[in-house]
Amino acid sequence: MRPTTGWLADGTTGTLRRGPIERRDLRADDLAVRIDYCGVCGTDLHALEGYDSKAGHLLVPGHEFTGVVAATGSDVSGFAVGDPVAVGNIVDSCGECAMCRAGQENFCHAFPTLTYSGTDRQDGSHTLGGYAREYVVRDRFAHHLPEGLDAAGAAPLLCAGITVWEPLQALGVGPGSQVAVAGLGGLGHLAVKMAVALGATTTVISRSPDKADDARRLGAHDLLVSSDSEQLAAARDRFDVIIDTISAPHDLAPYLRLLAVDGTLSQLGYLGPVTVETIDLLVGRKKLSSAGSGGLPATAAMLEFCATHGITADIELLPSSQVNEALERLRRNDVRYRFVLDMADLD
Amino acid sequence: MRPTTGWLADGTTGTLRRGPIERRDLRADDLAVRIDYCGVCGTDLHALEGYDSKAGHLLVPGHEFTGVVAATGSDVSGFAVGDPVAVGNIVDSCGECAMCRAGQENFCHAFPTLTYSGTDRQDGSHTLGGYAREYVVRDRFAHHLPEGLDAAGAAPLLCAGITVWEPLQALGVGPGSQVAVAGLGGLGHLAVKMAVALGATTTVISRSPDKADDARRLGAHDLLVSSDSEQLAAARDRFDVIIDTISAPHDLAPYLRLLAVDGTLSQLGYLGPVTVETIDLLVGRKKLSSAGSGGLPATAAMLEFCATHGITADIELLPSSQVNEALERLRRNDVRYRFVLDMADLD
Repeated sequence: MRPTTGWLADGTTGTLRRGPIERRDLRADDLAVRIDYCGVCGTDLHALEGYDSKAGHLLVPGHEFTGVVAATGSDVSGFAVGDPVAVGNIVDSCGECAMCRAGQENFCHAFPTLTYSGTDRQDGSHTLGGYAREYVVRDRFAHHLPEGLDAAGAAPLLCAGITVWEPLQALGVGPGSQVAVAGLGGLGHLAVKMAVALGATTTVISRSPDKADDARRLGAHDLLVSSDSEQLAAARDRFDVIIDTISAPHDLAPYLRLLAVDGTLSQLGYLGPVTVETIDLLVGRKKLSSAGSGGLPATAAMLEFCATHGITADIELLPSSQVNEALERLRRNDVRYRFVLDMADLD
Repeated sequence: MRPTTGWLADGTTGTLRRGPIERRDLRADDLAVRIDYCGVCGTDLHALEGYDSKAGHLLVPGHEFTGVVAATGSDVSGFAVGDPVAVGNIVDSCGECAMCRAGQENFCHAFPTLTYSGTDRQDGSHTLGGYAREYVVRDRFAHHLPEGLDAAGAAPLLCAGITVWEPLQALGVGPGSQVAVAGLGGLGHLAVKMAVALGATTTVISRSPDKADDARRLGAHDLLVSSDSEQLAAARDRFDVIIDTISAPHDLAPYLRLLAVDGTLSQLGYLGPVTVETIDLLVGRKKLSSAGSGGLPATAAMLEFCATHGITADIELLPSSQVNEALERLRRNDVRYRFVLDMADLD
């Protein structure tokens, strides 16, 4: 086994503590990645809140990270030691189902192996995430980090970025599209940057007008204040696509009214049950959808697109020793727009 | 006023009774239509069940009918006495909003005037529907009935037909599409015929295998029995479009699983609130939508398509005097696939 150091929960405290963890010895198609930067995702917070040490597993969160290849398995040909790489929230899949064959490993019928708190398909071990100095990953689930992308700002692209990229692509967003992004957090601010770069007329929907400067700085063309009923009424039927990144449960009806005929609301931020009145979909043949994570080809394409357009996350970079502070501030939405942990202090 | 005879509810009985009703004198852009055939729609049943005579209005149901022009207003140029015509479930709209300008009068921001139990935009009168010998309608809301379409079988095209046509068109159904139709009633059987004629590989989803012969006779290529879990599992991710015409509330999750990546379930039969787990949309970026009725250009296009492909509803034609029996049988789903009333007995 390969010893490394990470930030873990083991039931002794309610927070993460620094401790030793082990990675598997390299299989023929494995890479060892020295993690330099790992983003702090809302999922990490939920995982910690829901963690139960009685299940007998450690929790090491983190599923959007960048680093460099530290070692390669005997059959690895696509990567060399020293290559900058990036890893997202899935690290394996069955490879045989229709979804995997179509490059949508995130929808694998046999369920993809999650980067943390998943189960390794070969040895049944419990996966430990990227809040650590090293990760061992099957080569095809690592991505070359394109030149020119800042490695710290790129880390959140691997989860937040691909999650907004997939629906933008699937819904055909491009020049002429009217796109709205509801909620301006980790997901939302990347959705704005990508929609703008795709050529869409892009509007931020926010509860308060104080996001206007931020929205414009991110490239948005307009801000719609969701508490202003006159603004909402004037924007009726306006958007082809709404990327809804609001993480709390919320009434979708006011947002559906903003969709143009045949428009789609993609709810990415809140993943629980949702109730809509069919009539709110019927009038305008509107669509409710969702998306999350991404397949390998789409992730690679997204990284290239971001490199071409200079898109990375707006981050607050913290030494990894401040991980608990980062999680606590994320809980209060006190971040613009993503925390990234610098793992150098784990050496 | 123009006297005619219809089937009405006025609170004296729980059923419809034959009685005299009045139509308005022709405005400059009005047609008087001698109604020959009127379909019996589920909406008519709901309207009768929900009818409250205390509101002070008669109820005359009926919003999918065909007939011939009996008289024309002074400014009418597109129709002449004797022309075969068809009228659906809306008879006016504001004409000024973005929806009306786009030819989606059914989504009129000021709400379209319904063929019955609506409010006339000019005189404020309560509209009375097509279970009658004559109707007076603004010319632009009447359609020429294309040659070659049987007038009785064509009547249901004006509500059931256009309701399934709009999503089939909006969702791009054509050669290569995999379409499923859930529920084989008035809406469903027309959806099958249209999807087949559009070139889609078309599957009927039904609770029981005894619909197989009917499905094939309608042109469907396959039948999927929704109570057969093995069949459902084998059909996972198969359909680009599911036209869901089931009228009772039902769990959408098993149907969403049958959708391909980026597929759409259009729920047309049940129009109440619907709850879905976001994860059931997320995995596969699946979409939930709805549709109902149609705009004037789409309705005209649908009628031409049906004439070209010889599509009319499979109907049971009854003299209008059997309207109450038709409604009672419809309540029990005892119809293949649509009742149409022959209004000749009202002379």
